[in-house]
Amino acid sequence: MDMDVRTNDKLIVNCIPIGDKDRQRFMDAAGDVRIEFCAQPESEDSINGKAEIPEALRGCATAVLGNIDPATVNQFTNLEWLQTWSAGVDAYLKPGVLSEHVSVTSSTGAYGQAVSEHMIAMMWTIMKNLTFYIRNQSASRWQDEGTVLTPQGAYVLVVGTGDIGSHFACLAKGAGMHTIGVRRNAAKSVDGIDEMHGFDELDELLPQADVVALALPSAADTYHLIDERRLSLLKKSAIILNGGRGDAIDDDALAEALKSNSIRGAGIDVFEVEPLPASHRLWEEPRCLITPHIAGGEHLASTVARIIDIAVENVRRYVNGEPLLERAH
Amino acid sequence: MDMDVRTNDKLIVNCIPIGDKDRQRFMDAAGDVRIEFCAQPESEDSINGKAEIPEALRGCATAVLGNIDPATVNQFTNLEWLQTWSAGVDAYLKPGVLSEHVSVTSSTGAYGQAVSEHMIAMMWTIMKNLTFYIRNQSASRWQDEGTVLTPQGAYVLVVGTGDIGSHFACLAKGAGMHTIGVRRNAAKSVDGIDEMHGFDELDELLPQADVVALALPSAADTYHLIDERRLSLLKKSAIILNGGRGDAIDDDALAEALKSNSIRGAGIDVFEVEPLPASHRLWEEPRCLITPHIAGGEHLASTVARIIDIAVENVRRYVNGEPLLERAH
Repeated sequence: MDMDVRTNDKLIVNCIPIGDKDRQRFMDAAGDVRIEFCAQPESEDSINGKAEIPEALRGCATAVLGNIDPATVNQFTNLEWLQTWSAGVDAYLKPGVLSEHVSVTSSTGAYGQAVSEHMIAMMWTIMKNLTFYIRNQSASRWQDEGTVLTPQGAYVLVVGTGDIGSHFACLAKGAGMHTIGVRRNAAKSVDGIDEMHGFDELDELLPQADVVALALPSAADTYHLIDERRLSLLKKSAIILNGGRGDAIDDDALAEALKSNSIRGAGIDVFEVEPLPASHRLWEEPRCLITPHIAGGEHLASTVARIIDIAVENVRRYVNGEPLLERAH
Repeated sequence: MDMDVRTNDKLIVNCIPIGDKDRQRFMDAAGDVRIEFCAQPESEDSINGKAEIPEALRGCATAVLGNIDPATVNQFTNLEWLQTWSAGVDAYLKPGVLSEHVSVTSSTGAYGQAVSEHMIAMMWTIMKNLTFYIRNQSASRWQDEGTVLTPQGAYVLVVGTGDIGSHFACLAKGAGMHTIGVRRNAAKSVDGIDEMHGFDELDELLPQADVVALALPSAADTYHLIDERRLSLLKKSAIILNGGRGDAIDDDALAEALKSNSIRGAGIDVFEVEPLPASHRLWEEPRCLITPHIAGGEHLASTVARIIDIAVENVRRYVNGEPLLERAH
């Protein structure tokens, strides 16, 4: 038998928790390349945590599927490719973490449905004053909380139009909204977006928005994109949503805007500091709906299925020397 | 000038709170017929209450626009037509309230958007565990509340497919759901409904439903339509919504189903007894989202605009002897 020496130098270490059927899919995709499975299939929520790999495998692994602790990456001396189960990969792209010749691919395409649905749920909850009714319920209080908002005919500014932003825009259109996208390259059309603009137009777009939905990756130039000045450009009836990265909003400025009634509400899943410290004033704002960075992760079965699909396809490509999907580095 | 004696015997008393522009629309629609305006334009939320009409006008009013107190109807001795601002008219159709020759028309078409949006907001809130996160927030608690549900590809059973049910179905489709309608006449197709069935098929449909959305008027044959037996037919993951009339659900049986985890959640705006008594066990069910019959009313500006549109058109028809819209009696 004619063995391919190159492929047999490779070792794929798979930390994604999977059942027998998906294990077979990975083995089929790996072909002659050795693949080791390290996940505990019985452990729930493990995609939210860090991948654990036995020390003996670290030096010989050429590919890892899963979010290993960035502090241990230097032990993976033969690493060629890291496939994360997260959408974000910024922890691995920091200087000094990975050597230059390691490819990093993410599962960014897996989270669009779950995160966008969470964002639209937060929007509806705020528009219909359900945050107040749920609190009233704790006191068995039958009390009218006044006028509500509607998405029908409202303008939503979708800032960041990747997988999450595009999914969100489709859901927003299904609720009757007009969707305005903001992205780096305004010339590119995106599913669900009625009208696309560049970041340089953001200040002119904010005063028209009924809802601002942030779905940005973490990057130096989006840090505190929504700060005190930009919050002051919003309508008094505006709602702001964040399902991307926490540092796109200045959380102190947001708390102040809510406290002073200069915007209607906020639905926030991601924060500059997580967990959000118990002392942070945002917790006390009744018109801020806080969720603990749970929009993605393993909360929706279809997210896990998509993470597996992306990893299987990239294993096939890695083994066959084809370009990898969702490459970030 | 040739006066029409018949039309000049008529007196329309309008209790709908309106501004000058809408007042002119009513006057144009009334033509030569006398129209009196009784509402306090400055009073907010008056569409939720009862219409007040000076005693002097009660005996000569031939038409009333607004929900007069059913107990005072016998004072309206010349009444020919009552236009309610509510969707429901059951209070006026009870034996002995109105004489047989009085026409009753409702504003049923005005509430579809507001009530259906409230129902879909409750659905999203429950699916994404936001009821739990909002309660956690009161304690500054950063805590994952586990797996969520998605409307994508889910089946919703829309029971009652009038204006509210049809609107709800359209929103549900916009969120990726399959919509199954249940109505008296299954042969009639309705906007937003993928598949229509009759009430006789309800027991076979309930076990397949991911969401059951009730948008029924109050009627003898829908009293406790959802009782202990039918609740037991539902999936453990099912969510039940009610934006129609409270007595379509047996509230005690619903509380029991939630307590015993035999369904996932409920979003209820209408109850058998309103206000829901502070001692009712539904208040204590964390997976029951309770709102105090506020889905309709004046909470959304477009609802009031539609009530006015319907009333203006019916005034025009009344004056010209044409058949009235939304006639219930």
